[in-house]
Amino acid sequence: MQKREITIAPSIMSSDLCNLEKSVKEIEREGIDTLHIDIIDGAFSPSMPLGIDTVKQLRKITDIDFDVHLMVNDNEFFIQEMIDIGVEQISFHLETSVHIDRYVNLIKESGTKVGVALTPSTPLSALEYILPQCDTVLLMLINPGFATNKNEKQIPYAVQKVKDLNQLIKEKGLNTKIEVDGRVSLETIPGLVEAGADILVAGSTSLFIKNRSLAENKQIMEEQISKGLNKEEAVK
Amino acid sequence: MQKREITIAPSIMSSDLCNLEKSVKEIEREGIDTLHIDIIDGAFSPSMPLGIDTVKQLRKITDIDFDVHLMVNDNEFFIQEMIDIGVEQISFHLETSVHIDRYVNLIKESGTKVGVALTPSTPLSALEYILPQCDTVLLMLINPGFATNKNEKQIPYAVQKVKDLNQLIKEKGLNTKIEVDGRVSLETIPGLVEAGADILVAGSTSLFIKNRSLAENKQIMEEQISKGLNKEEAVK
Amino acid sequence: MQKREITIAPSIMSSDLCNLEKSVKEIEREGIDTLHIDIIDGAFSPSMPLGIDTVKQLRKITDIDFDVHLMVNDNEFFIQEMIDIGVEQISFHLETSVHIDRYVNLIKESGTKVGVALTPSTPLSALEYILPQCDTVLLMLINPGFATNKNEKQIPYAVQKVKDLNQLIKEKGLNTKIEVDGRVSLETIPGLVEAGADILVAGSTSLFIKNRSLAENKQIMEEQISKGLNKEEAVK
Amino acid sequence: MQKREITIAPSIMSSDLCNLEKSVKEIEREGIDTLHIDIIDGAFSPSMPLGIDTVKQLRKITDIDFDVHLMVNDNEFFIQEMIDIGVEQISFHLETSVHIDRYVNLIKESGTKVGVALTPSTPLSALEYILPQCDTVLLMLINPGFATNKNEKQIPYAVQKVKDLNQLIKEKGLNTKIEVDGRVSLETIPGLVEAGADILVAGSTSLFIKNRSLAENKQIMEEQISKGLNKEEAVK
Amino acid sequence: MQKREITIAPSIMSSDLCNLEKSVKEIEREGIDTLHIDIIDGAFSPSMPLGIDTVKQLRKITDIDFDVHLMVNDNEFFIQEMIDIGVEQISFHLETSVHIDRYVNLIKESGTKVGVALTPSTPLSALEYILPQCDTVLLMLINPGFATNKNEKQIPYAVQKVKDLNQLIKEKGLNTKIEVDGRVSLETIPGLVEAGADILVAGSTSLFIKNRSLAENKQIMEEQISKGLNKEEAVK
Amino acid sequence: MQKREITIAPSIMSSDLCNLEKSVKEIEREGIDTLHIDIIDGAFSPSMPLGIDTVKQLRKITDIDFDVHLMVNDNEFFIQEMIDIGVEQISFHLETSVHIDRYVNLIKESGTKVGVALTPSTPLSALEYILPQCDTVLLMLINPGFATNKNEKQIPYAVQKVKDLNQLIKEKGLNTKIEVDGRVSLETIPGLVEAGADILVAGSTSLFIKNRSLAENKQIMEEQISKGLNKEEAVK
Repeated sequence: MQKREITIAPSIMSSDLCNLEKSVKEIEREGIDTLHIDIIDGAFSPSMPLGIDTVKQLRKITDIDFDVHLMVNDNEFFIQEMIDIGVEQISFHLETSVHIDRYVNLIKESGTKVGVALTPSTPLSALEYILPQCDTVLLMLINPGFATNKNEKQIPYAVQKVKDLNQLIKEKGLNTKIEVDGRVSLETIPGLVEAGADILVAGSTSLFIKNRSLAENKQIMEEQISKGLNKEEAVK
Repeated sequence: MQKREITIAPSIMSSDLCNLEKSVKEIEREGIDTLHIDIIDGAFSPSMPLGIDTVKQLRKITDIDFDVHLMVNDNEFFIQEMIDIGVEQISFHLETSVHIDRYVNLIKESGTKVGVALTPSTPLSALEYILPQCDTVLLMLINPGFATNKNEKQIPYAVQKVKDLNQLIKEKGLNTKIEVDGRVSLETIPGLVEAGADILVAGSTSLFIKNRSLAENKQIMEEQISKGLNKEEAVK
Repeated sequence: MQKREITIAPSIMSSDLCNLEKSVKEIEREGIDTLHIDIIDGAFSPSMPLGIDTVKQLRKITDIDFDVHLMVNDNEFFIQEMIDIGVEQISFHLETSVHIDRYVNLIKESGTKVGVALTPSTPLSALEYILPQCDTVLLMLINPGFATNKNEKQIPYAVQKVKDLNQLIKEKGLNTKIEVDGRVSLETIPGLVEAGADILVAGSTSLFIKNRSLAENKQIMEEQISKGLNKEEAVK
Repeated sequence: MQKREITIAPSIMSSDLCNLEKSVKEIEREGIDTLHIDIIDGAFSPSMPLGIDTVKQLRKITDIDFDVHLMVNDNEFFIQEMIDIGVEQISFHLETSVHIDRYVNLIKESGTKVGVALTPSTPLSALEYILPQCDTVLLMLINPGFATNKNEKQIPYAVQKVKDLNQLIKEKGLNTKIEVDGRVSLETIPGLVEAGADILVAGSTSLFIKNRSLAENKQIMEEQISKGLNKEEAVK
Repeated sequence: MQKREITIAPSIMSSDLCNLEKSVKEIEREGIDTLHIDIIDGAFSPSMPLGIDTVKQLRKITDIDFDVHLMVNDNEFFIQEMIDIGVEQISFHLETSVHIDRYVNLIKESGTKVGVALTPSTPLSALEYILPQCDTVLLMLINPGFATNKNEKQIPYAVQKVKDLNQLIKEKGLNTKIEVDGRVSLETIPGLVEAGADILVAGSTSLFIKNRSLAENKQIMEEQISKGLNKEEAVK
Repeated sequence: MQKREITIAPSIMSSDLCNLEKSVKEIEREGIDTLHIDIIDGAFSPSMPLGIDTVKQLRKITDIDFDVHLMVNDNEFFIQEMIDIGVEQISFHLETSVHIDRYVNLIKESGTKVGVALTPSTPLSALEYILPQCDTVLLMLINPGFATNKNEKQIPYAVQKVKDLNQLIKEKGLNTKIEVDGRVSLETIPGLVEAGADILVAGSTSLFIKNRSLAENKQIMEEQISKGLNKEEAVK
């Protein structure tokens, strides 16, 4: 039986924003096929990491999959911009959206994969009708846009929430991917993977740990991922 | 008698956002000492060119003066972020500010130069009491944040507005700088300089004209600037 | 045993807005006793079909029941306006309301029937405590206010959501009406009625199908409704 | 020498909103070529007289000039809607606009005449740079959107503001039209016309005075207009 | 076995706001150790009972526990103000919060007890992940901020909601406190206590009933509380 | 010839908010007939000194004139609340008001005196048409709502702005009062009075200077006022 495939999605925030081309090429060279891009508007939360034009120019020099996480108030505007740029996946937050079903359709009809993102405390009941329409659910494991607060820790209910979502997806017979974002670290990866995480947003506590090369970090991450998958298998 | 000094402020938007370090170093090599940085929040107008973290990382690798133009709704937040980064000048828009005098003081007390920015149609009477407190007035000559609309032309009243502001500054015995931004081109430079412009935000229609090197474009710009200064002298 | 009564509620949006009196009189002549009125403020979603004064003047020339569906941000204002006009039912959206219980009471105390409206993706758990206070739950089967997008299709989970709501109402021993709105068509009516829909908002895909008279369309609708009711009976 | 031409612009708010086609045809029969249409979003002020779809349907059955007065917060949206419908003039309020020059261009580039509207207290200095770009300035002589308050009187400084604007237009050598809106009555028409008003928005205190036919009211209005024009001539 | 401890939390709104020191000292003399403080911003709901500076000055003259209930749109600002003042508990509303987990942490890290407040209709499913992080859940039994409406009655589902929450807390093995606020009266106290309420916000219908002294009212309240506790025991 | 009468308006913010009755009675005993009350909503600026209910209760125990300064976003709501309470003067900010003329009328029609308040940088041209309708213009000499920032100094253009306003009032032949608020101190009083100030909002730098009694401070203030008035006379 084939093991689940786990995606490592390095966060653009951990790369060198003054030498993005170089950073992304380095990521590609390691065989990584996904780049996680955080778009925050300064109003959803007090951060604005990078801009739309940066993404637009980056699109022209790389074919790596752009996995965009919108943390914005005006979803309609930013979704349309990302569609126009030609990204591969767009996740938007349920908490700022009145027209959730519309945004899902807007994204899908453009041929882009669609994710819905949840802040830590948002209950899974919010997904009741929209889950089958989505490719991915992005679970935030820290409060989005406050990451500069170095004291910000991963929520204690992270693994439980992944497990609950995994069970919900299975109960509905879906194959929606679970993406986890926020202090995903070497220590927490086995547990998150065992609980059901499919896509790991990787930053300074995993793929970009200092004093080790990208390749070394990636290998350690993969070992941790394997531990998680093995435990998952063992349970079955 | 000494001629006025005119500053060429290349817009970061015309540089290579995926290779910012290289772009900025190239600008520095041409002896240019100012970089114009546009921060838009996607709500003030439908654009978000680049992010705060990009500016933060850029600060660490260059000493070029950062001339930041905020086009945002939440001035308090973005001003504080720019102060923390350590930029050299911050201009904010009067049209979105209730507490204009406060923002001016906030910026000045941090040791940063302060500018107030005006959209094309905003009357100069808005400057009545705040003008003497400012280092710079930034006159937008196109509608800010809609520059991607390639049909957007410089306002027909550009030169007149610069002249009016220049006269107002002289009447009050001030030496406030006049900064102009928006389709500042080789053709319009002499007129704008003659009218009193001190800082020219330079983009795709001047310093970054394709098929010529940065050095060549700079030289042509300087010739056009000289024409403007000479006419100004002739009038006196 | 008596069959459930199903209400056909023609949408005012499908009538001739330049000859409203004539349109409404024609509807009345067909023995229809309810008119569905959509009020959108241009901010909830990018539409503003008709205005408050139009409803006010219409009230003076007809006794048909006004079933008002508010799609607005400022519920308090629009609810009060509708109460003052003297409409028969007011439904407002949960998604834009902090003070849901208050609006329900405000409407009820005026002697008006009260409905709560849900966008497609809103889970039924939102109704936990408010359901017993309501006369009607209005389920949107398309994204409200984007109907001009002709590609907008009825949500695939329409029947399931009606069924779930019907079950919830029965479990609680209530007789809350289920109203469905959005591409309710001849094809979908039997399924929606069987699932438990009580009020059908009728537009261009049912009561106002071109090339047939209102009377003809109404008759065909009633046949489709009967099919639904018969299936419902058969199941019991 | 030819007298100025004065336009009578009947307000759609004074017509029969349930029989709009009949109302507008009656207006046309009297040789009136302009219909004034008030669009309010319920947020700019607590009114929402009529909707976008009403205007859209009306466009299909009449060629009368649509003179649209937007009293809205989201000018960009409503301007685009009115352009799409194909109206003849669009006026928007300076007080809710950051991007005034942009809206003026947006309207002009569509081939539509453009007006800027001012609430009673807005100073004319707001027009400093935008006046030459406009076809019309619409001066509100009552507070817009509160007209249902029957105690609302025309501002005491109405004639003075028209005079001031007229002088400003002449000083600049322009031929911008002055439109006045708000309790324009038989008594106030001569003074407003003498002061320089070109377009009179006509409602219940002029063209729609009860107990007289539209034709009779129009004739009396024209007599009052002539009085104003004659006084104006006398002064010259 | 020891009975549950029930806290009487007198609402500052029922005290003499012009002689707060005297009012609070009187409350302290009765052996009451908690003061419930309502902060409303006039935007969450149309009330603004008292201000931040009032709380700040009050803090300097009393050690009574401040149990602050924020009914505001900008939770981040008000939470920080209350932390700076040094209150004992801060409850904020889930309905106006995107970053619920963040606010919980912000409060906890300051050493303050944290509560989440729910308007009457908000379902308990909103608490799914945040409940174990909280010291208290504050259930509003009237619509917050409309209390000046004297017709405002306690919601009919008050006892049921307390019971449901109590069961949820027990199922999760937590000892979160249940606080009830809104027309908590001598008549309703036994039922609310029996259902599981731990903290009773006391106003004009309990501790401040006119014609009786504070001491007398307190004694009667305690008798009613005992009734509730006894019934609770009897059921076990 | 009679000297101008200067009003000392003690700020409620400098009184003892926990013993307001006592504080206000003490003020009354000194023969002061006006109390300046600051209402801020926490959104106009980051402060919320005191609440509506505090003002309401205070009204019942004193006849001193309430001079209310609203620093809020929702002027309509707070103006109506203050009218209902029965205050003597209401000033609101032009910067947050679209319907300025309406608010002026709303206040005047209730028999209350009306003031318009200007932040430091707002030009006097904003008063062009509204000045003759007002009883008072309140000039803010510090940025409103940031007074807790102890570094906040009076604006350097304070005296000039008072002079300019005084001249404007005289040119128009009005007798509008000039109220000044913000670090009005013993040192600055003579200059402000000489420039034309009629009402002095008095706080910690004048009437409430520590180590002196209210009576002593008042006497010194009056001496400083006389100095200003004498200089004014001398100039004539």
